[in-house]
Amino acid sequence: MGGDLGPRCIVPASIACLAEFPSLHLVLVGQSSLLEELIAGMPAVDRSRLKIENADEIIGMDERPAQALRSKPDSSMRVALELVRSGRANACVSAGNTGALMALSRYLLKTLPGIDRPAMISAIPSANGFCHLLDLGANVDCSAEHLYQFAVMGSVAVEALGVPNPRVALLNVGTEDIKGNQQVKLAAAMLQQASGLNYIGYVEGDGLYRGKADVVVCDGFVGNVLLKSSEGLAAMIAERVETLFSESIGSRMVGGLALPFLKRLHKDLAPETHNGASLLGLQGIVIKSHGAADQDSFQSAIRLALVEVRENLPEKLHGRLEELL
Amino acid sequence: MGGDLGPRCIVPASIACLAEFPSLHLVLVGQSSLLEELIAGMPAVDRSRLKIENADEIIGMDERPAQALRSKPDSSMRVALELVRSGRANACVSAGNTGALMALSRYLLKTLPGIDRPAMISAIPSANGFCHLLDLGANVDCSAEHLYQFAVMGSVAVEALGVPNPRVALLNVGTEDIKGNQQVKLAAAMLQQASGLNYIGYVEGDGLYRGKADVVVCDGFVGNVLLKSSEGLAAMIAERVETLFSESIGSRMVGGLALPFLKRLHKDLAPETHNGASLLGLQGIVIKSHGAADQDSFQSAIRLALVEVRENLPEKLHGRLEELL
Repeated sequence: MGGDLGPRCIVPASIACLAEFPSLHLVLVGQSSLLEELIAGMPAVDRSRLKIENADEIIGMDERPAQALRSKPDSSMRVALELVRSGRANACVSAGNTGALMALSRYLLKTLPGIDRPAMISAIPSANGFCHLLDLGANVDCSAEHLYQFAVMGSVAVEALGVPNPRVALLNVGTEDIKGNQQVKLAAAMLQQASGLNYIGYVEGDGLYRGKADVVVCDGFVGNVLLKSSEGLAAMIAERVETLFSESIGSRMVGGLALPFLKRLHKDLAPETHNGASLLGLQGIVIKSHGAADQDSFQSAIRLALVEVRENLPEKLHGRLEELL
Repeated sequence: MGGDLGPRCIVPASIACLAEFPSLHLVLVGQSSLLEELIAGMPAVDRSRLKIENADEIIGMDERPAQALRSKPDSSMRVALELVRSGRANACVSAGNTGALMALSRYLLKTLPGIDRPAMISAIPSANGFCHLLDLGANVDCSAEHLYQFAVMGSVAVEALGVPNPRVALLNVGTEDIKGNQQVKLAAAMLQQASGLNYIGYVEGDGLYRGKADVVVCDGFVGNVLLKSSEGLAAMIAERVETLFSESIGSRMVGGLALPFLKRLHKDLAPETHNGASLLGLQGIVIKSHGAADQDSFQSAIRLALVEVRENLPEKLHGRLEELL
């Protein structure tokens, strides 16, 4: 029921994914009358693979996580996570309130042994592919131990996504040893000692986009600011391009010719092409879709859940964490 | 002597500024034989307004600030700052080692009464003009009091640059009251109490580019990451546009037509158009130019110094700080 577009986007995205993946089964969790109505409007739905689980309550996008945890036992988010906890579902995908999703996931699924706090990780386009950044806002005050745990989790997760021996870096304000705050310096010392981890040192904000690392670790405050400011900058550039190409007849003509190229670029960089942040460190798979996700974007988030189910990521993480923590 | 291009960029930039501002006097500080040689290669230089102050030592771009402070009494950076301290110059502009410039400025010029740490502020293009962001990397661990001082200094500085009653915001991971770490929440409480300051609350990373505030305050770690990641993202987008428009004969033709438009956009957004970060909170004017500045960029940094001299910014800051701290 969450996200800016809610089930109007999630229902068609789900049905498209069922067609794409013949072995996929989906459970839509939410107000069943609304969901049934939306499904009825879609052609050729295989209802043997599409179930509905009723949940009457909805957690608002701005609701306080603590409030959502206490007062809404029958929210769609909570019921969906209960399905994962009870083993009736292998993963939960939500476009809802991020803080509430994190709080409910921690409460219902629990963290893996050795993990204090789950972290959010997402892929960001970089010069030579993708960089995976964590944490993205779940934890605003991180100790060196937390950063170390994030590095281990990020490395295992990105390897599971198909990047062999991923290069792991700490985000910092410079690349020399003396740079950074105390937490980052301590985390660097811990990572230098860790065996079986391809730790490459510090990267700066630009290094992330220059493709210098596969996994970049930072506290959630920094990660959230980086992600959102990048979104804002990309949107501003896109708007300025549009304005430039609409100022005169001449510029409109050139703009018309350039448009297909710029559209391709936008597609490469746009969040919908690789929507979906994983909540790592839980005893279960939870994927957060961008709240503003459209149908295409939400399908990306479901695909990411499928990869993590196929790779059995929580199990893999559990094994590696036993070695490294 | 600092910066990636050193005096080969700074000398012609200085001479161009002398032509642009007939009342400007400049002192070039560094190895006089090299500087004289570079000046000799330039046409029509008014030497009555261009002096040289010899300084034999150079602080390396990667040198530790503490080392630079202790062991190089005759560095060009130090000698330039001594000119400001002794009143022989009204401002110092440097493209050198940022950490060393901050450390030497604090040591030689001292901070204004009530200011614990100077902060670096710079203009960033936003949807409707510019946003001024501070701190940009001088202070990696900031208390609420520091953030409060930055907000006051940023407000006064941006007003002096010509923005009446600037909107001041704290950078945060959300706009609701409960969001953020302890320092940010405490700073918000202090700013809500401050009179004579147009404090508008929290902005997120994207809000900065959407033009929601004129002054955005954060700790130096976050500000540095935001600035550098934005640089990296903008460079990556520019490279991808170039690649797209060079892939085939058709795309090259369209690219050729689109190029003038994209160049204009690049000029609007590029750092050289508004290069120059101010070190705020010192008893003197110090401007840090980007290390990679070319001649045009370095001229922007000199222009910024001129504005601050004309506005007598340290004096204005001193007066407002007495009211607000």
